[in-house]
Amino acid sequence: MEISLAVSAQLLRKAFNIVLTTHIHPDGDALGSLLALYFYLVSTGKCIRLLLDDDIPASLAFLPGTEEIQKLPETPETADLLVVLDASDAERIGKVKHMVKAPILNIDHHISNTKYADYLYLDSAAAATGEIIMQLLELEKASITKEMATCLFTAIATDCGFFRYANTSPNALRYAADLVEYGAKPSKIAECLDTRPLAAIKVLPKILETLEIRELSATGQVAFLTVMPSLLQELNDDTEGLINYPRNIAGVEIAVLLKVVNDNVIRVSLRSKITDVSRVALTFGGGGHARAAGCTINGPVDLVKDQLISAIEKLSKNDGRSG
Amino acid sequence: MEISLAVSAQLLRKAFNIVLTTHIHPDGDALGSLLALYFYLVSTGKCIRLLLDDDIPASLAFLPGTEEIQKLPETPETADLLVVLDASDAERIGKVKHMVKAPILNIDHHISNTKYADYLYLDSAAAATGEIIMQLLELEKASITKEMATCLFTAIATDCGFFRYANTSPNALRYAADLVEYGAKPSKIAECLDTRPLAAIKVLPKILETLEIRELSATGQVAFLTVMPSLLQELNDDTEGLINYPRNIAGVEIAVLLKVVNDNVIRVSLRSKITDVSRVALTFGGGGHARAAGCTINGPVDLVKDQLISAIEKLSKNDGRSG
Repeated sequence: MEISLAVSAQLLRKAFNIVLTTHIHPDGDALGSLLALYFYLVSTGKCIRLLLDDDIPASLAFLPGTEEIQKLPETPETADLLVVLDASDAERIGKVKHMVKAPILNIDHHISNTKYADYLYLDSAAAATGEIIMQLLELEKASITKEMATCLFTAIATDCGFFRYANTSPNALRYAADLVEYGAKPSKIAECLDTRPLAAIKVLPKILETLEIRELSATGQVAFLTVMPSLLQELNDDTEGLINYPRNIAGVEIAVLLKVVNDNVIRVSLRSKITDVSRVALTFGGGGHARAAGCTINGPVDLVKDQLISAIEKLSKNDGRSG
Repeated sequence: MEISLAVSAQLLRKAFNIVLTTHIHPDGDALGSLLALYFYLVSTGKCIRLLLDDDIPASLAFLPGTEEIQKLPETPETADLLVVLDASDAERIGKVKHMVKAPILNIDHHISNTKYADYLYLDSAAAATGEIIMQLLELEKASITKEMATCLFTAIATDCGFFRYANTSPNALRYAADLVEYGAKPSKIAECLDTRPLAAIKVLPKILETLEIRELSATGQVAFLTVMPSLLQELNDDTEGLINYPRNIAGVEIAVLLKVVNDNVIRVSLRSKITDVSRVALTFGGGGHARAAGCTINGPVDLVKDQLISAIEKLSKNDGRSG
């Protein structure tokens, strides 16, 4: 059932024994929203548990409260309410949904939300779930502490690429301003988020040497960057930001990051400036947005590059015919 | 004479024939502020000229109005007012000050301003000169066009590192929010600013291979990155962002970028997390802020590294003694 933010607040007020969770592979918005809501609910004297069916990424361990996040219990438990933040489908919370017996309140901003929860508050206009939590705290006249502000600034900033992505709205920027007033320190947060292990810098030259640019008459330049299996391992599978190297080159229209999982499995990320790359990804059973999409293709990496080039050319030719 | 923003507005209202300029090596704040004020003053029906004693960097050529910026006239000219934006000393505007005979109105946010102008409006609390121009436009009840919004968002965003630096204030974020409402597109602006020539990516592996980390007992790790003369030339002297590679490595306290101009001249940039590196720079006749400073040192690069290490160790020992 879809409900309003006011009804969501009411559900939270009525419940006492509450479990909070978020999606696996948690990002800044997932953890920032989770922890900010945790600090608020604890301050109202309720019994609150944080469960997560995954580890905390090293780059987000700086968030206050991460030490309160627990692994799953061994036997199912009951609660008055299971609050699921930023997870657009039930699979994304892993085993938490089996281990907590409680009605689910889902608070989310993904337009792709599958409406799996007993109660859903969905605001797809919000740049981040953190923006919704901020609205909830305002509605409840919560006093926002420095810890909550740090969590929510991180939530909003990471989900809009530190105010560089197309979802950077006036609201996102105004909430960020309020959060700085409440004590969030953008420079400290950015410093924590930007920290990389030495290994990531050490392997970067080897990755950059794989840069290959192909000129397509239909769309312009396509730039490929390839991460071979051994380097992928050294990076602990963290390829965050790598796609920006081909993407930022002057004249490049489509950037492609190829993560070579093994000789026959390639995970592909696509970015573009004008072309609708979600249609390219769809050709290979993937998906995403018009300017940022992804898919997995089976085959050796050189063949995969050729297949991608063919798909891009075919789609742009079809556009030409219909136009 | 230091004046208020209201008096600055009055001076602009009274003048008809106005020349606008900004500092050489113009950055986003310099050009963004210059062009936004240009669009506003032109809209009031005045005769406005844009002069700059330098070229426009390629990464800022996307700003609307850059085509209106003129090179210096061959003989001195007169005007009612010469408005100098974002330049903290008279040297920074190059030959413009000799070629325009007019009283100078300087609008700036640098605390280091030398107060060289006939009229100075200085707001060192502003994150960018663009923030001051925004206030001026509000004071004048200007209608802010999409072009002006693009220029001012760029001005504010670039001077606070896209909201990552310590000067990212609630005001800077709120003005950015207003500017998005007036039509600025953060994602388009970021895309333009992030674009790099292919050569910059090609030389990056060679630069990253120079990474050297030294462990100091007093301060922790110091990471050096060196740009040799041939690579500096390939980069067209644009080393923007390179210092972030050593700076973002986990455990590194002080990051040093060494630009080897020739065998005997090294330009040094310093960044730190805790240490006051402006004192290190001062040892070598340079200066800057506590967490970001610079200097030029004569000598071969290996000797320069040793000299920097010695200076850092000496300063931290002195701190130890006095502490």
